[in-house]
Amino acid sequence: MIDRLVKRIQETGAPVVVGLDPMLSYVPWHLQKKAYKEYSESLEGAALAVREYNYALIDAVADLVPAVKPQIAMYEQFGIPGLQVYADTVRYAKEKGLIVIGDVKRGDIGSTSEAYATAHLGRVQVAGARLAAFDEDFATVNPYLGSDGIRPFLKVCGEEDRGIFVLAKTSNPSSGEFQDRLIDGKPLYEHVAEKIREWGAELMGETGWSEVGAVVGATYPEVGARLRELMPQTFMLVPGYGAQGAGAAELKPYFDADGLGAIVNSSRGIIAAYKKEPYLTFGSEGFADAARQAAIDMIEDLKQVRG
Amino acid sequence: MIDRLVKRIQETGAPVVVGLDPMLSYVPWHLQKKAYKEYSESLEGAALAVREYNYALIDAVADLVPAVKPQIAMYEQFGIPGLQVYADTVRYAKEKGLIVIGDVKRGDIGSTSEAYATAHLGRVQVAGARLAAFDEDFATVNPYLGSDGIRPFLKVCGEEDRGIFVLAKTSNPSSGEFQDRLIDGKPLYEHVAEKIREWGAELMGETGWSEVGAVVGATYPEVGARLRELMPQTFMLVPGYGAQGAGAAELKPYFDADGLGAIVNSSRGIIAAYKKEPYLTFGSEGFADAARQAAIDMIEDLKQVRG
Repeated sequence: MIDRLVKRIQETGAPVVVGLDPMLSYVPWHLQKKAYKEYSESLEGAALAVREYNYALIDAVADLVPAVKPQIAMYEQFGIPGLQVYADTVRYAKEKGLIVIGDVKRGDIGSTSEAYATAHLGRVQVAGARLAAFDEDFATVNPYLGSDGIRPFLKVCGEEDRGIFVLAKTSNPSSGEFQDRLIDGKPLYEHVAEKIREWGAELMGETGWSEVGAVVGATYPEVGARLRELMPQTFMLVPGYGAQGAGAAELKPYFDADGLGAIVNSSRGIIAAYKKEPYLTFGSEGFADAARQAAIDMIEDLKQVRG
Repeated sequence: MIDRLVKRIQETGAPVVVGLDPMLSYVPWHLQKKAYKEYSESLEGAALAVREYNYALIDAVADLVPAVKPQIAMYEQFGIPGLQVYADTVRYAKEKGLIVIGDVKRGDIGSTSEAYATAHLGRVQVAGARLAAFDEDFATVNPYLGSDGIRPFLKVCGEEDRGIFVLAKTSNPSSGEFQDRLIDGKPLYEHVAEKIREWGAELMGETGWSEVGAVVGATYPEVGARLRELMPQTFMLVPGYGAQGAGAAELKPYFDADGLGAIVNSSRGIIAAYKKEPYLTFGSEGFADAARQAAIDMIEDLKQVRG
C-alpha cells in the first residue's frame, strides 16, 4: 500500500492528506439543521450531518490529494451512528480513489492487538467466511506496549497489502513529557524510531519505502531532520501543519532529496477553512469550495519546500 | 466512581474483574450455530453469538464480582454489529449492578482526546441535547502522548463522576522494550507513575483513592511492589493473572496493608474456563456455570494473599 501512496503523491504532486476530523462545530449549521429535522437532536442526527459534510469535502478534494485521514475519535463520540458514518466515510473515500489512513492510534498486546489489526486492516474469520470490518488502507498505532503490540499489525499488513504509521514524536506541547526523555543519551522517540526501522525492514515496498511508517509532528522540525536521517526508508505522516502552528518552511527536513518521504496532514485548516481568512467569502454554504481552495493553497505552499 | 468500586470490592470480598474479551473461538459452537442460522456467517451473526455469550456470563458472575472489563478490540473486529454488542454489553452489565471498565486504551491529544473521553465516559453536545455514547464507568488510557492526552479525561471524570486507569507497566513480554528503559536512573514506568499520581491528586475520592488509577501487569510483582509504594493512593488494575502466567502468590505486593488498592483481571481463565481443567466436566453447554465456578475459585485463591 505504501507504493500506491508514493505513486499517488507523485501523480498529484501533493504530499498532503486531508484530516477528516469533523468536530460538530465545524459542520455548517444548514447541514446540522437538515439532519436534526430528519433525526431530531440525537446521535443519529449528528452522525447524518457529519456524513453529509464529509461526502461534500471528499468530493471537493478527491482529485487534488492522494489521501484522507479520518480521526475515529470524532466519530466514536457519536456512538454507533457515529462509527457507522466513520465506516461510510472510509468506503466513500475509497470509491473516489482516495487512500484512507485510519487515525485510530490503537495499541494493545497479543490477541487484542491482532483484533485491532483485523478490525482496521484485515479480515475476521466467521465460521467459513472472511469478512472486513472497517477496511482502511493504513492505520496509526501506539508503540507504548512494545513489539507484542506491533507484530500482529505487521502480519496483517503483509497478508493484506496494508500499512501502519507508528507514533514516534507527536505534535502536541506535552509530547516531550515522556517522548523526549533521554535513555542512554538519546530521547525515547529515537529508540522508538529504531524499532520502527527494524519492524519496517520486514515489509519493504518496491519504491524503497516501508509499509511501516512513523508519525512525526510538524511542530518539531529538528526532530524531523534527525528522524529523517535515522529512518531513511520510513515514510512520515506529519500532523501539526497550519492550525497547530507549523508552516511550510519547517517541513523541508521531513522530506528526502527527491522531495519524497513525508505526507503532511491538515485537518481544521482545510475542512473548516470557510470559518477563517482568507476563505470567509465562501460562506458556510460554500464550505466545500473553501476546503478545495485551502487544499490548493496548501499544495502550492508545500511546493517551495520539496526537493 | 472509584468510591463505588472500593465499596463493591468490600461488599463482595472480591478484588476481581471479569474480562469480557470474547474471542470467537471461546464462544461455544451451539451459540454460534444458532446465530449463524439467524444472520448467516456474517459480522451480524458473530456479534449476536458474542452477545448471547456475554449476557450469560454476566448473569453467571453478577452477584460475585464488582466489575467487568469488556475489551473493545474484540468487538471492533466485527465492525458496527460488534460495537453495537459492546454497547449492549456495557448497558446490560450496568443493569445487573456491575461496574464497567471499558478496556479501550485510547490516547490522543487535545480535542481528539476530549472526543474519546466524551465517547466513553461523558456526554456529547448535539445542539440542545447532551447525549452519552458508550457510557462506561471507567476507561483505560495510554499515556504516550503526555498530559495533553490525559487532561481531557480528567475533566470528564470530574464532571461525570467517572475514572480512568492509565497504562503504567503492561503485562506482556515486550512491555520492557520502552517501559523499562532507564531515564535519570529510573524506568520509564516510574516516571509515568509519578505523573499518574500527579494527575490523580486532582480527583481524590472519599475513600482516599483517586479516580485516576494505573494498569500494572501481574507478571512483574517487583514492579507492583515498587509502584504500590510510589503511588499509595492509586488503585491498580492488574491484568495477567491466570492465563498470562501470574498466580495469587505474586499478587500480594499490589495490595496495601488493608487488602485494598488493586483489582485483578481474569479474562480467558473465567470466560473460557469450560475449555480446560478442572472445568471440562461442565461441557460447552455449561460454559456459564464453569465461568461462575472459576470466578468463585479465583476469589478464594486471592483471599490468601490479601491483608
